[in-house]
Amino acid sequence: MRTISVKELSDLVVTILEKSGVGTADAQLTADVLVTTDSWGVATHGTKLLRGYGRRLRAGGLNPRGVPKIVAEGPSWALIDGDVALGMVTSVFATKVAIAKAKTTGIAIANVRNSCHFGAAGFYAHLAAQEKMICIAVANDTPSVAAPGSKGPVFGSNPFAFASPGGAHPPIMLDMSTAVVAGGKVWQSVASGKPIPEGWLVDQEGRPTTDGTLYPDKAALLPMGGFKGYGLAIMIDVLSGVLSGAAIRDKVGAWVYNPDTPTKHGHAFIVIDPKLISGNYESFQSGMNELIDGVKECATVPGNGPLSMPGEHEENRRTAALKNGIPLRDDIIDTLREAAQEAGVPFPASLA
Amino acid sequence: MRTISVKELSDLVVTILEKSGVGTADAQLTADVLVTTDSWGVATHGTKLLRGYGRRLRAGGLNPRGVPKIVAEGPSWALIDGDVALGMVTSVFATKVAIAKAKTTGIAIANVRNSCHFGAAGFYAHLAAQEKMICIAVANDTPSVAAPGSKGPVFGSNPFAFASPGGAHPPIMLDMSTAVVAGGKVWQSVASGKPIPEGWLVDQEGRPTTDGTLYPDKAALLPMGGFKGYGLAIMIDVLSGVLSGAAIRDKVGAWVYNPDTPTKHGHAFIVIDPKLISGNYESFQSGMNELIDGVKECATVPGNGPLSMPGEHEENRRTAALKNGIPLRDDIIDTLREAAQEAGVPFPASLA
Repeated sequence: MRTISVKELSDLVVTILEKSGVGTADAQLTADVLVTTDSWGVATHGTKLLRGYGRRLRAGGLNPRGVPKIVAEGPSWALIDGDVALGMVTSVFATKVAIAKAKTTGIAIANVRNSCHFGAAGFYAHLAAQEKMICIAVANDTPSVAAPGSKGPVFGSNPFAFASPGGAHPPIMLDMSTAVVAGGKVWQSVASGKPIPEGWLVDQEGRPTTDGTLYPDKAALLPMGGFKGYGLAIMIDVLSGVLSGAAIRDKVGAWVYNPDTPTKHGHAFIVIDPKLISGNYESFQSGMNELIDGVKECATVPGNGPLSMPGEHEENRRTAALKNGIPLRDDIIDTLREAAQEAGVPFPASLA
Repeated sequence: MRTISVKELSDLVVTILEKSGVGTADAQLTADVLVTTDSWGVATHGTKLLRGYGRRLRAGGLNPRGVPKIVAEGPSWALIDGDVALGMVTSVFATKVAIAKAKTTGIAIANVRNSCHFGAAGFYAHLAAQEKMICIAVANDTPSVAAPGSKGPVFGSNPFAFASPGGAHPPIMLDMSTAVVAGGKVWQSVASGKPIPEGWLVDQEGRPTTDGTLYPDKAALLPMGGFKGYGLAIMIDVLSGVLSGAAIRDKVGAWVYNPDTPTKHGHAFIVIDPKLISGNYESFQSGMNELIDGVKECATVPGNGPLSMPGEHEENRRTAALKNGIPLRDDIIDTLREAAQEAGVPFPASLA
């Protein structure tokens, strides 16, 4: 474990992306997404992903100079073609399009095709919450999750994120896989030598297994809550994939493999303007205060402090990271070192 | 167990509601919601609820002549006051408002306050799907579900429903509690003498319990997937309660108690027009066919047939019920008999 400042880590990400052909503005935007995610303590979806993105940018499976654009739109919707740009670039663009439309009409949806893996879904929902908006962000992915009764993966771990302004409190941010856990947590457990708990994986015959090394080729994640997580994953493939004309289900590429081939991921971003619906922003804020203050007053079992709101731990970790730097695990530092080497970029002394 | 025809059960519901002061059109609409739900085999949310609704209508906690109305609106949103009408009356109205707006703008949201328990969330999502629209329907409820680490209930079992047209297949319909199970399933298990599985309930000290008779006064449901279900319940209270100015969390009344006092439930209905976003309805249908046909081709473990889509079992049960009648459990027949007696309505010979 080493600690690196937000600035130094961001500079490294920007440099690696620029050396991989990405323009400065898009490199900075992508660094913001990945480093913010690391600062939240969500190591599975932060700069750990950079090595894979870099390979894909240089091999052609991502277009370093891709420019997402609106290909069709109406008062409250926009269909966006990602032009095979980095998923972060396209997703920030799409979220901003949905925010602008929702500010006029109350609610809007941006549907995205020709994108790729977009990192942490919560980043985009949180971005909207910082603009005083409510947001649901979803994406499909290549199948890694079994359905109840299936012999192999049927849907992706299709993430679902929700964020809302929190009144006098920080924004609420829920970011969850519709699998029992995100696949990244299996890799993290394998990398750190931890056993996989029962209830995470089934093998190719649909039998429970705790052997994390079987994932993803010879084991599938289980859906969260059985039929519920399966149902939510289907919903997300409809919103992200079918509606947008992106690839769906097993047609979505695995972003870590075949770096020369676009993955055709789809996303959807639904944004709501609470100011319009609540009549004014202050009365919405007052409702959020009532909600969160009430939760904080609930009795908890001995040893627990007050209940946490979704996103609260992430917010606290970010505050600490901005002050003291981001702690990075050794296996993540190793992937960053490889990402730098492969892009021909010097590695920072603080991590060397 | 007795079997009753859809027509006979509907007539009974209409008569009981009319005798409780509800106008014919609203009584027929409510009967359609409850009997359709029974025909899907979702006995926890069908005509079993009628006895409680009847008491509430006669005691004043529901307004039999309530007329839901739009109190504020914009291009893609409407804020609806339920006027303490039956939750079904207000929710069908709100869903239709959202459908009409979404057909113009692509997506719309109807937020509802001054409502009550609305039965099965899936009914409203399914209603939109029958109109070739995609829909998310949510509602808040009085707390019955613990948060991870809480000593008592913190949020309602806040349901989440999603429906979409299914191309050449029936609509997809997901209807789930954000608790591990709906509270109605605990009552159903207690009524039928079945034990409560571990993982459903915690007692007032936050300890696991399998004593279903403790629920709801001295036990709380567990959230689905721990922090995930808790987070989704919070999202639903924001969308249903905070945004609409309805009651939130512990301010929402328990609809089965205090029948003379309005419960102030809130709901939200988000409707999307796939025809607009996909360019034409046919290409959306073709995407849905690809999705569902692909799932049906997935390998399953021995003994399982093809994977089921959410709502498929309900659709099959409804087809059978329209032909052969609806099988009703004895404990549900008992509540219907009481509902009829209390309203002064003769009980059908087929159930006597």
